[in-house]
Amino acid sequence: MSTGHHEASWRLPESDPFANTSVEHYQALAQLAERGKFDSIFFADSPVLFGDVGRRPAGSLEPTVLLTAIAAVTSRIGLIATASTTYNDPFNLARRFASVDHVSGGRAGWNVVTTAGPEAAKNFNLADQPAHAERYERAAEFLEVAYKLWDSWQDDAAIADKEAGVWALDERVVPIDHVGRHFQVRGPLNLPRAPQGRPLIVQAGSSEDGKGLAARYAEAVFTAQQTLEDAQAFYADLKARTAALGRDPESIKILPGIVPVIGSTEAEALRLERELDELIRPEYARLQLAKTLRVTPEDLPFDQPLPADLPAEDEIQGAKSRYTLIVTLARRENLTVRQLIGRLGGGRGHHTFTGTPTQVADAIQSWFTAGAADGFNIMPPVLPAGLETFVDEVIPLLQSRNLFRTDYTGPTLRHHYNLPRPTNHHPLPTEATA
Amino acid sequence: MSTGHHEASWRLPESDPFANTSVEHYQALAQLAERGKFDSIFFADSPVLFGDVGRRPAGSLEPTVLLTAIAAVTSRIGLIATASTTYNDPFNLARRFASVDHVSGGRAGWNVVTTAGPEAAKNFNLADQPAHAERYERAAEFLEVAYKLWDSWQDDAAIADKEAGVWALDERVVPIDHVGRHFQVRGPLNLPRAPQGRPLIVQAGSSEDGKGLAARYAEAVFTAQQTLEDAQAFYADLKARTAALGRDPESIKILPGIVPVIGSTEAEALRLERELDELIRPEYARLQLAKTLRVTPEDLPFDQPLPADLPAEDEIQGAKSRYTLIVTLARRENLTVRQLIGRLGGGRGHHTFTGTPTQVADAIQSWFTAGAADGFNIMPPVLPAGLETFVDEVIPLLQSRNLFRTDYTGPTLRHHYNLPRPTNHHPLPTEATA
Repeated sequence: MSTGHHEASWRLPESDPFANTSVEHYQALAQLAERGKFDSIFFADSPVLFGDVGRRPAGSLEPTVLLTAIAAVTSRIGLIATASTTYNDPFNLARRFASVDHVSGGRAGWNVVTTAGPEAAKNFNLADQPAHAERYERAAEFLEVAYKLWDSWQDDAAIADKEAGVWALDERVVPIDHVGRHFQVRGPLNLPRAPQGRPLIVQAGSSEDGKGLAARYAEAVFTAQQTLEDAQAFYADLKARTAALGRDPESIKILPGIVPVIGSTEAEALRLERELDELIRPEYARLQLAKTLRVTPEDLPFDQPLPADLPAEDEIQGAKSRYTLIVTLARRENLTVRQLIGRLGGGRGHHTFTGTPTQVADAIQSWFTAGAADGFNIMPPVLPAGLETFVDEVIPLLQSRNLFRTDYTGPTLRHHYNLPRPTNHHPLPTEATA
Repeated sequence: MSTGHHEASWRLPESDPFANTSVEHYQALAQLAERGKFDSIFFADSPVLFGDVGRRPAGSLEPTVLLTAIAAVTSRIGLIATASTTYNDPFNLARRFASVDHVSGGRAGWNVVTTAGPEAAKNFNLADQPAHAERYERAAEFLEVAYKLWDSWQDDAAIADKEAGVWALDERVVPIDHVGRHFQVRGPLNLPRAPQGRPLIVQAGSSEDGKGLAARYAEAVFTAQQTLEDAQAFYADLKARTAALGRDPESIKILPGIVPVIGSTEAEALRLERELDELIRPEYARLQLAKTLRVTPEDLPFDQPLPADLPAEDEIQGAKSRYTLIVTLARRENLTVRQLIGRLGGGRGHHTFTGTPTQVADAIQSWFTAGAADGFNIMPPVLPAGLETFVDEVIPLLQSRNLFRTDYTGPTLRHHYNLPRPTNHHPLPTEATA
């Protein structure tokens, strides 16, 4: 989000309403996050114009382009771009992420999404989106192809023997000859192996299919969890699924999103939150809510709870986990449509921590120590101010409690997450002929 | 080319053989070119591993990523990336180029290629490339879709009225609803209109289909011409084709590639050229030549001319114009295979100007004044040294003859080429309903 994760943040006097296309704005945010020793900066994305242009800043720079521009003015912070497996080709996308990894010295991450909704499909020659399970099946094969391409050059393929006039050894750069249900890709990639071997793989869907994909492939998971109990259950479930597939549970980092609304007193924090909520235009927000719930705005009177007869999650082919999160939140707290809109407008379903820096640090500590998170995706309601406050006032508290690094310990994103560089899966020639 | 356009340049003692993946190398080259007030820096590309990894540095950073990294350390020079219309989707690619244009403050250009050869097809689920005419038909429709997407936001769509809570006017951001033979794309683009309106469109194929596409869409054309007469004929032909389609011939800039081999004396320049040619490994080069000519290496004895019974151009589905250029060059000058390899290894079919800075400036001037070029694509045999010499010794001569700018006159690539910013083709709402 350009001016902050609260949908009305752009209306504040200090916000730049054109920040969504300003590379300088994002470069400054990344430098600020790097000063705070954040693991990474992350951009959500979808290949469709999402939301109402009337309601808030819409349209955004393509994330691999934006993160490359950020790479040039930073030196340590990780760079995680969202890209769709449903609306890309594996050859092009694998190369692009490997390019970002090269250009940034090993700081690239890929948030793998399957892109819910019929709107995106219509930008890609389709009348409607492929079914949920079909999208996830394609995503898994897409990742297999990408892994093979990233490994199609041995790390030591190029020997650069000027005297003999031999640049690389042919047998260390090999076709992948992938033939699958969704893809036939010959390879090899047209780029030597990247500094991290492969970019860090991130996943964010919390549906059954999404959790299955995460357990198999993800090294970090972004998730929206409203309560500590939900977050603990999600954490335990995903770690168990990962272990069940023979992976070390430490090799997947679970990172709930949190919206820190910070004031020097609790009253000031609450005032900021109320001020922002009052800037939401409810009729626009209701339109969006109706779309997600597959009903009409007239089905959602402002001062009544959600209708009882909403579709079940398994009928939803779109963003299943988001749908369930919204319905569960509304039902659990018996919220009216107006109240629900306030909650979603502030954090879009992520947990909001409102209070003083100490209260926010306490909340983070309690989630972390209670086994609900390996770390957090910090989503300030207002940018850059909310990030600045977090870096200057919350991070030092976490550092003094030995909960957070005081400096980077290595140059790559994998170092920040304490994950090893993947060895090359492709068999060495000697192994292949053994 | 990373270490220079001569294929053996990487073997020189001063060359960095890993420059092909070094962003710092390319950033320094771009800064050097910007010091020389060049219009732009340009990267060829293909979504396939091209050439022999044993022979010379292979694999390259994806151009839109690389140019974005360059944008961050330069302020004026144009940034032209090659991308294929055969192996991309228009929605994703249109957005990526618009993103580069935003991030660079209006310096993006797109060299539109259709990607010849069966090898690339095999990276994209195909057994062979689509036929030549089919690829060009798709390219034309691809460009139509891209134009519509770039114009799907009016320039003044976003009004950012914080008081009223209205960010953009809905009627100024409209679907394109494109339905064609190759593409169905709903739109609008998920990004406000770019600083240049649209990136500069560049084209480089010289086949009949290629010239047709250029005359209709291109604003700049890269071309390989061996002789002044050929260059003049190509120039006159393409300007006439452009005018015949109702376009101002000034709106298309024709830029032959030239390889300047510069020495402080003519003898020194010739020595440098010979030194480089002697570093070519002929058996590798013959393999590549055989592939292009669709024969086997055994069909090409080193000390004999090309075989008489090569296929006609219209049987070639690949890079038609490159095929014809090579065959014409060999036949016209009655070159042996070995001699042909030397000529191609140095400039890959582009004209080589070998001599002192004054001789090179004279040659450039003569081509320019004889109606063979609006400008040139400078392809130094060795990088960065060849570019440095050109900037420091040839550019000042051209400036003193009033043939080249002494400073940039505007911030965007369109300014450098003296081309207007395109007005939005999409009808305004009032016009649409009139």
